Amino acid sequence: MSSERLIYLPLGGAGEIGMNAYVYGYGKPGKERLILVDLGVTFPDMDGTPGVDLILPDITWLAERRNQLEAVFITHAHEDHLGAVAHCYEKLGAPIYARAFTSNLARRKMSEFGHPESAVKTVSPWPEVTQAGPFSVGFVPISHSIPESSGLVIDSAGGRIVHTADFKIDETPVVGEAFDHDLWASLAAPGVKALMCDSTNVFSTNEGRSEATVATPITELVERSKGMFICTTFASNVARVKTLAEAGVRAGRSVCLMGRAMRRMIEASVETGVLKDFPSTISPEDAKGLPRENVMLIVTGSQGERRAASAQLANGKYQGMTLKEGDTFLFSSKTIPGNERGVIRIMNQFSEMGVDVIEGDDRYHVSGHANRPDLDTMHKLIKPQTVIPMHGEHRHLREHVKLAKSNRLGGMLAVNGMMIDLSGNKPKVAEYIETGRTYLDGSVKIGAMDGVVRDRIRMALNGHVMINIILDEDDDPLGEPWCETMGLATTGRSHAPLVDVLEEDLSQFLGRANDKTLGDDDKLEEGLRRVARQSTQNEVGKRPEVTVVISRLSA
Amino acid sequence: MSSERLIYLPLGGAGEIGMNAYVYGYGKPGKERLILVDLGVTFPDMDGTPGVDLILPDITWLAERRNQLEAVFITHAHEDHLGAVAHCYEKLGAPIYARAFTSNLARRKMSEFGHPESAVKTVSPWPEVTQAGPFSVGFVPISHSIPESSGLVIDSAGGRIVHTADFKIDETPVVGEAFDHDLWASLAAPGVKALMCDSTNVFSTNEGRSEATVATPITELVERSKGMFICTTFASNVARVKTLAEAGVRAGRSVCLMGRAMRRMIEASVETGVLKDFPSTISPEDAKGLPRENVMLIVTGSQGERRAASAQLANGKYQGMTLKEGDTFLFSSKTIPGNERGVIRIMNQFSEMGVDVIEGDDRYHVSGHANRPDLDTMHKLIKPQTVIPMHGEHRHLREHVKLAKSNRLGGMLAVNGMMIDLSGNKPKVAEYIETGRTYLDGSVKIGAMDGVVRDRIRMALNGHVMINIILDEDDDPLGEPWCETMGLATTGRSHAPLVDVLEEDLSQFLGRANDKTLGDDDKLEEGLRRVARQSTQNEVGKRPEVTVVISRLSA
Repeated sequence: MSSERLIYLPLGGAGEIGMNAYVYGYGKPGKERLILVDLGVTFPDMDGTPGVDLILPDITWLAERRNQLEAVFITHAHEDHLGAVAHCYEKLGAPIYARAFTSNLARRKMSEFGHPESAVKTVSPWPEVTQAGPFSVGFVPISHSIPESSGLVIDSAGGRIVHTADFKIDETPVVGEAFDHDLWASLAAPGVKALMCDSTNVFSTNEGRSEATVATPITELVERSKGMFICTTFASNVARVKTLAEAGVRAGRSVCLMGRAMRRMIEASVETGVLKDFPSTISPEDAKGLPRENVMLIVTGSQGERRAASAQLANGKYQGMTLKEGDTFLFSSKTIPGNERGVIRIMNQFSEMGVDVIEGDDRYHVSGHANRPDLDTMHKLIKPQTVIPMHGEHRHLREHVKLAKSNRLGGMLAVNGMMIDLSGNKPKVAEYIETGRTYLDGSVKIGAMDGVVRDRIRMALNGHVMINIILDEDDDPLGEPWCETMGLATTGRSHAPLVDVLEEDLSQFLGRANDKTLGDDDKLEEGLRRVARQSTQNEVGKRPEVTVVISRLSA
Repeated sequence: MSSERLIYLPLGGAGEIGMNAYVYGYGKPGKERLILVDLGVTFPDMDGTPGVDLILPDITWLAERRNQLEAVFITHAHEDHLGAVAHCYEKLGAPIYARAFTSNLARRKMSEFGHPESAVKTVSPWPEVTQAGPFSVGFVPISHSIPESSGLVIDSAGGRIVHTADFKIDETPVVGEAFDHDLWASLAAPGVKALMCDSTNVFSTNEGRSEATVATPITELVERSKGMFICTTFASNVARVKTLAEAGVRAGRSVCLMGRAMRRMIEASVETGVLKDFPSTISPEDAKGLPRENVMLIVTGSQGERRAASAQLANGKYQGMTLKEGDTFLFSSKTIPGNERGVIRIMNQFSEMGVDVIEGDDRYHVSGHANRPDLDTMHKLIKPQTVIPMHGEHRHLREHVKLAKSNRLGGMLAVNGMMIDLSGNKPKVAEYIETGRTYLDGSVKIGAMDGVVRDRIRMALNGHVMINIILDEDDDPLGEPWCETMGLATTGRSHAPLVDVLEEDLSQFLGRANDKTLGDDDKLEEGLRRVARQSTQNEVGKRPEVTVVISRLSA
């Protein structure tokens, strides 16, 4: 047995849905040549990451080994696969390989950050391959919910790995390449060491439905709608946008795209030739001049995002357009768990306008991920020694391992940070790597464990008390302590202003404090904080965050 | 036409799901004698109400008319109908009428607040009625997901109103009274002016399923499970708790109830006689001594609540119990929109322990609310002049009005604050009343619009900068300005500590400031805030909340 080994290390995406980042390596232990597959983001929420702009995988481990990194391969252009590429480029520096549509979008991102667009290399699909150190990597077209999605064939002296990326089995995907059973079966020929496989829909027991199945129901719906017809889907689901637009045209409507992402995606699709016969569209200005029943708007914001077109229309107006009684709004999408509140808010706003809303209706949406029977199909086509589930929360990965075993394949549950050695007959854990999340917060990156966001959450839950005291040259308080509060009721139990009660209690504390306490900033601060907490608790029943500022006039 | 009028005024629950509070009145305009039906709470979330403990309807309008208020009627013991009774008792003072089980729980709440338990009067069901000023009110048993739920017949000289409260049409409800078609049909005999009707499930097009249908699937599931079996449901769903417990016993398991609410509900059910043959239960201590396959835990926390038994078990341990590989955890419940994140967190924690989790499986749960066909049935039984939908978001109410019209009944959409005059042939809006939400925040009540929670949200999104400056007797700065930050990155663009950059920029501002600015607290504060915001924006890309404290040493 050679001393070289083949390793797999997820830095993101294994144990969560989002911020995919999977490392493969081949070479002597610790000196492997590395490639990275996908480099995505995940989105913040008020519960755990208030105020954060974007969540990136912590790539410290990889950045420390940038000299070992040969290349980054991006399987498709969804944000959870592509979104961190420009953010992390400086730290990694490696060339980025993708197919034309994905490259087009990757270059736009690089350019926004002032990085060289030339770092993004466009590659052709399998059987063409890219050499990256010990690896030969091929992009195998696969159906998903965005153009030119690809699984990867990753060959090395350590054996063949098939990395599905996100996929569904769709023989009529409307835009782009149909799932090709023969092609995928052919990948199994040399024997496949491991199949890294999408797990998102492992709990969905029905066979997946094709993108093509929604066209007729959508067309019928548009045809029987009376007022303006407005619909939303992920802008990147170019096939769906096309289906919607064609339904509009068939019903005698002019189509208007609204929202920056919607226009950018269609632009990229046309530029790269993946979209050939998209109906001509009109501007919002032109749409306003037409009778409502002759207009279809296709808008961004299927997840209730606050700044997207759908939310703005729900708030009243977007680019001069307003909705009204008799209009119909279709969510041609599924609400991602966690986004329900935003979507429901919009639905009720539309309801108040008299707009009929259709949401959560399976006739008008299909998933882009393989359901359980389709995962079975993939297992059977590839016949790997081991299935290593990815792109899933822990429960998805665990269930997918069970599924692999029920298909008499090996299965291994590997979460972020588990470095798997694939060299032997059975994969084994080689090492545990520290991984985590990096927050883009305003213009800076902060670690998830830095405490910055934790402090914000605490202020949101508990309120904030600020205390100022000034001490003179003899460590005697000069005047009374001064309090300010934020996020706390202004009066409580005693009906006196909370700040007055606090200042009084703090004053008394200072009056009782001995010289040792008054002379020691830490002791004094601790005492003041304790009194402020207790006093706030008594008055309004909350234990606030407390900031103490002690100013000493002594020279 | 008499000068008396019959009015309906929802203060909560119409345009939202939660904090139900519906006022009815009869008498001369402005001098109506009033009754209140239900007085519930709704639950806070991190998105809009971080740190808030409970959300109550704003009852200012009613409190200002407490002399006109005859009584409060509570239809059933769910928190969104009963939860605010004790919180609001001081402001309203009226007697509270409910059936035995609801009374039992209402008295516990009153007693916790030091209010007289005697204010809660237990009434018998229809045809017995309670006189309350001009109203005669009867509690008509109806099936729902908690014992002794009742619709109300509200008679006055203004005509009959039927208020369904929350309901489903269930002829085999396991615990409590079956839906009695003849009884409900008989209410229509004298003619019904208006039907105030539950709207929760108006978008569910299938006929509702009976509580009894889940017993067999649950029993089969428990029987084929190997390790410990743990299940959760709303504690108040006593029928479900009984079904679960009986399934456990049938599978040879001893049943242990965990979580305060679970034990309290079963206690109240037994005390009031609504639950007669509940299997005997064992303590957690005893459960620990038994083989795992002989134990069933029924626990609180079906919505992923952080402090409930399920979340604590997911965190590792609760009352000495731990779960492990081979155990099964059943959510015999539906996740309420907005609670997904908490539930998913728990599911993944269990997955990490090797526990099999079953969630979102219709075989093991049925809704407590009437689906669309069941609403049709109710419409047809009661044959009201007008249906006024309640217990729903705007979209539910709007759809329910459409349904009423399709059943050839009048329908009116009334949201919180719309006072409806029911006197004429057609209901009409009499007045718009200001309504809203009151937050229980620690131990104090604050208005939703007071800005307290808004400030907390802003600190969570933007971080907080605190600035201190001291000015001497001549309005000259004494030393440098002092900054503290909370919830902001400690360094940014310049790689110097953020507070140093802020202090430097603020210093420069002070150096440039003229006497007029230095002598005017408002001007000075405004200037310092502006500089701090701009400087923070430059460094870390965020515009923080800023608190400025100016101390003047002048006498």
